[in-house]
Amino acid sequence: MTDLLLRDVRPLGGAPLDVLVQGGRIAALAPGLAAPPGVAVEDGRGMLLLPGFVEGHTHLDKTTFHLPDWLVNEVGPRIEDKIDTEREWRARTGHDAGAASLAMAKAFLAAGTTRIRSHVDVDTAAGTRHVERVLETRATMAPVQEIQIVAFPQSGMLARQGTDRLLDAALAMGADIVGGLDPCAIERDPVRHLDIVFGLAQKHGKPVDIHLHEPGSMGAFSLDLILERTRALGMEGKVVVSHAFCLGDLAERERDALLARMAALGVAIATTAPASRPVPLVGPCRAAGVTIFGGNDGIRDTWTPYGSPDMLERAMLIGLRNNFRRDDEVALAFECVAGAGARGCGFGDHGLAPGARADLVLVEARSLAEAVVARPVRRLVVSAGRVAARDGALVA
Amino acid sequence: MTDLLLRDVRPLGGAPLDVLVQGGRIAALAPGLAAPPGVAVEDGRGMLLLPGFVEGHTHLDKTTFHLPDWLVNEVGPRIEDKIDTEREWRARTGHDAGAASLAMAKAFLAAGTTRIRSHVDVDTAAGTRHVERVLETRATMAPVQEIQIVAFPQSGMLARQGTDRLLDAALAMGADIVGGLDPCAIERDPVRHLDIVFGLAQKHGKPVDIHLHEPGSMGAFSLDLILERTRALGMEGKVVVSHAFCLGDLAERERDALLARMAALGVAIATTAPASRPVPLVGPCRAAGVTIFGGNDGIRDTWTPYGSPDMLERAMLIGLRNNFRRDDEVALAFECVAGAGARGCGFGDHGLAPGARADLVLVEARSLAEAVVARPVRRLVVSAGRVAARDGALVA
Ligand SMILES: [Zn+2]
Ligand SMILES: [Zn+2]
Repeated sequence: MTDLLLRDVRPLGGAPLDVLVQGGRIAALAPGLAAPPGVAVEDGRGMLLLPGFVEGHTHLDKTTFHLPDWLVNEVGPRIEDKIDTEREWRARTGHDAGAASLAMAKAFLAAGTTRIRSHVDVDTAAGTRHVERVLETRATMAPVQEIQIVAFPQSGMLARQGTDRLLDAALAMGADIVGGLDPCAIERDPVRHLDIVFGLAQKHGKPVDIHLHEPGSMGAFSLDLILERTRALGMEGKVVVSHAFCLGDLAERERDALLARMAALGVAIATTAPASRPVPLVGPCRAAGVTIFGGNDGIRDTWTPYGSPDMLERAMLIGLRNNFRRDDEVALAFECVAGAGARGCGFGDHGLAPGARADLVLVEARSLAEAVVARPVRRLVVSAGRVAARDGALVA
Repeated sequence: MTDLLLRDVRPLGGAPLDVLVQGGRIAALAPGLAAPPGVAVEDGRGMLLLPGFVEGHTHLDKTTFHLPDWLVNEVGPRIEDKIDTEREWRARTGHDAGAASLAMAKAFLAAGTTRIRSHVDVDTAAGTRHVERVLETRATMAPVQEIQIVAFPQSGMLARQGTDRLLDAALAMGADIVGGLDPCAIERDPVRHLDIVFGLAQKHGKPVDIHLHEPGSMGAFSLDLILERTRALGMEGKVVVSHAFCLGDLAERERDALLARMAALGVAIATTAPASRPVPLVGPCRAAGVTIFGGNDGIRDTWTPYGSPDMLERAMLIGLRNNFRRDDEVALAFECVAGAGARGCGFGDHGLAPGARADLVLVEARSLAEAVVARPVRRLVVSAGRVAARDGALVA
């Protein structure tokens, strides 16, 4: 691991200084640092310095990003249509979750994302194959990117016997987190679903991350059951609820009561901030003390043609969804794909401070807000102290 | 004007063919066209061919896009805060609406936008200065870009005596369209406001485009008054309502009744498809026969740091706001920044057909949907038959 002195950079748009990287970590940030003997020097030319980005909710295994042909999307409107379409497409095309996840992970890194939480499908058709292949991607990328794998029962586990044993196997082979999915709307037996999810978490000593698309009072009921189990099992700080759309359409009083319980239990929210439906808003979550962070969800897969491995674009979409116009508000949108993502996912030592992992991104922008709205090319990406990308492309 | 043969291009992703441009118009689209003597030939290398984009609602005069310093946004939350902040900022900085509009218009052209409708501020502080300066930009750009100017009373006209006379002067000096603004919420006297707007339209024989941010039943009332005047004055096909947010939060029955009246009167809707509030959706508008088209509204101005001169990005945001996932749905989002924009604004001869103005954009994309979600660099932009830009940059 080469040490590095990064000269003349502006952290988050602040005053220019130098950053000394040693042993993969930030050793010092100050103006006029001297380069120790043998340390490579990069001239930052007054560029904006950002911490490495965090993709808090995606599906590396699903993407068609690496395929030569454009996938024409003709899927029906219901969530079940999308689940069934995907499983059939996967089986028909022999989709290679290894190649898909590796291409996507590399594209994320080239655009400055050094930490990723990926849900990965586990079901009775694919078995644990996707997890096995994403584990390979994780190993390949480990020197320059930290990937968390959620064993995710996308097709449900109650209607498909044996899914729970496959999740158990995926966790045993190295998946980091137990996934779950709409306990009422899809699984139709919330207690049984959540008891399996939390049971696996207890057995393996691993955290939980549950996709909760359910709206309104149904979603609030499922969330209530999740919070109940979080407290009963002492899993404070170990649970993420992804989407949590219900928090976007409950009355404020009910929403705030749930947020207060989530804050007390350290339950975080992953959001894609979709434009087309009610969502938990960043302001009320932060005011309640709930960590809310950002992710793409799927990128160019059978579910959606949208999404991008550029987390500055996700920050922009979060900003637009929350009507964040002031510079101090746009900074909150960025925080969702940086510090809040790291806290929510449990990626340690994130940030621009001595002792933190040296995950650094340089862009030509006058301010943090400009970086979010203009999404300029990443001139330099450093991950764990290594130069990983220049001018938007990975270095060898 | 040079004639041009564009070889091997795929219109909207269809089968490859050639396009012959003569006298600024499309003369023929067919496979294997022969180049007439002396006609320049461009090899399209199988790229996707799109018609020139239409920006249906922006404010060229307001942008800070051309300024060396980033404008830190600290504005308050109300629409009145934004209006007052802008007027004060403009006076304090001596904002140059000519330089702003020219830089923005050029950036639009480089990204494939050959037609623009710009609202331009007219008020008692700036007088008609912004209109005069954007008229200069329009003249400069005329050979390669068609710009419509809406004389827009951004600061209201009832509380600021003399604004109506300034609008009258702006229309006399060449502004194309009479603007208006929230007849109830801002103007507080809807009949008086609309009588002035429609009176000016009658006097000058020019169309109308009214900013209507008003929500719910207040917005529906203003819209009702607008439709009443459209019919009474025989202004069918000459009225655009910009934003029309009320159509996003009315009950479906009330919304559909208004849409039916709009369709019958040829009243179109300009939308930015903002993610943070209810908006008129593309599906119900189209189903009712109402033309709905897209625009950025302001781009990096005192109102907002967001926005981009890339209309493919606006199409993406329209697609996201409308939850358009299927390829045939994403095509509707593109239509909002292409054919529907031309129809709604009254830009003639738009499209990829013989006889149409030769406004052509080439990008490397496998499908129309990919062009929208990936927004690749514009390899070639042809406007009125002239090569205007290559690889994202204007040619001299
Ligand atoms: Zn997901
Ligand atoms: Zn506007």
